Amino acid sequence: MLSTNKIKFIKSLQQKKYRIENGLFVAEGEKIVNEALTFVPESIVCVYHTSDYHVSKHETNQEIISDKELSRISGLKSPNKCLALIRTGFQPKVSDNNTGTLVLDGIQDPGNLGTIIRTADWFGIKKIICSEDTVDFYNSKVLQATMGSIFHVEIAYTNIKEFLSASDNNIYGAVLDGKNLKENIFEDDPIIVIGNESKGISPEVKNLLTHPITIKKNGLAESLNAGVATGIILSHWRVK
Amino acid sequence: MLSTNKIKFIKSLQQKKYRIENGLFVAEGEKIVNEALTFVPESIVCVYHTSDYHVSKHETNQEIISDKELSRISGLKSPNKCLALIRTGFQPKVSDNNTGTLVLDGIQDPGNLGTIIRTADWFGIKKIICSEDTVDFYNSKVLQATMGSIFHVEIAYTNIKEFLSASDNNIYGAVLDGKNLKENIFEDDPIIVIGNESKGISPEVKNLLTHPITIKKNGLAESLNAGVATGIILSHWRVK
Repeated sequence: MLSTNKIKFIKSLQQKKYRIENGLFVAEGEKIVNEALTFVPESIVCVYHTSDYHVSKHETNQEIISDKELSRISGLKSPNKCLALIRTGFQPKVSDNNTGTLVLDGIQDPGNLGTIIRTADWFGIKKIICSEDTVDFYNSKVLQATMGSIFHVEIAYTNIKEFLSASDNNIYGAVLDGKNLKENIFEDDPIIVIGNESKGISPEVKNLLTHPITIKKNGLAESLNAGVATGIILSHWRVK
Repeated sequence: MLSTNKIKFIKSLQQKKYRIENGLFVAEGEKIVNEALTFVPESIVCVYHTSDYHVSKHETNQEIISDKELSRISGLKSPNKCLALIRTGFQPKVSDNNTGTLVLDGIQDPGNLGTIIRTADWFGIKKIICSEDTVDFYNSKVLQATMGSIFHVEIAYTNIKEFLSASDNNIYGAVLDGKNLKENIFEDDPIIVIGNESKGISPEVKNLLTHPITIKKNGLAESLNAGVATGIILSHWRVK
């Protein structure tokens, strides 16, 4: 049985300031909680779940709750069996070489950020560096859209201008007047920059691109969705 | 000044059954209304707008309303200056050759359908054929996500198995065990099938693919977002 204070506390983690204050965030639903149990079990504080969900790791701290209690602590319209309280700052193990780095320059929409993380994970990207004005990746809408990929990729927030200036790798990014995107234009272990949904890559970051590229347009749409653009660029990088 | 009945009527068009009953739908916001004025002016019944919006075609039937009235007829959280009442069944002019056809097999999420339409428009696709269980494209969330591309592409709902069976064109679709997606695997004027978000392409439609293709995975994500997959496939088709 959850106390009113506990319910209030868990709900408060929907807000960024309380996530920072407590170093905790909430992950919801079978798919995402299962991935957390597999990839970052040591960071899980507690899994709250209804009796029809089975926690795959029996050593995990857990509490069985009612459907009604779940709906009181959930941020979802349709709560899905379980909710995990997880420590922020978990680090998935990153060991592969030549996995590329994705740099995000001011992504604002949580759904877009989640889709970008999921897409990066599909193509084996292991590191994502976000500008400080990119939306918080512990946001529940981001987590839902990652479909669990949040636990497969290392994500950091930093001053991306300093990060890019200090890097020796080739830096690719989509701009209006770059070289046409094709297979085989990428060198090993590239850095790929994705710009803001409406403004694109900021001028200062654009100056740091070593390889400006362009996704050729054949029709009338003004722009591509940021997640779609990410998938297009990464897919051309990965084709050998 | 809008009557209560008028407000109720416009709001009712948020529901599919009233859109069908009246042959009307609602498009909102500057970007989308501007595209409607440019591409399907003859289908616009009326543009309701606040005094700070200027209707680019003066012959269009229009009515100036207050911010408060706009918020009463709007389906958006943040109404944006204008709302157009448009007849369903408008047909953008489709003249180009070799523009490809996109076939959607049960896309359920309105945001995904909108992103797919926008992406198709970017790559110059002029025809989209949707299975009968694909979400209604006059849905306001679809329209918002198209960013105006809804008025550049011909969209129809039909029995896609019959459509594909009757076609002589090459039919491509992403499956788990197809030929690796690369540039130069596409023949002229292809049909490209995109499957449902969770189930992919249905078994009967899969049997009709002449060219099953696969987007190679390097990482751990279980699947790609349907809009992202569309962008990846279309971008490889369009690279010459």
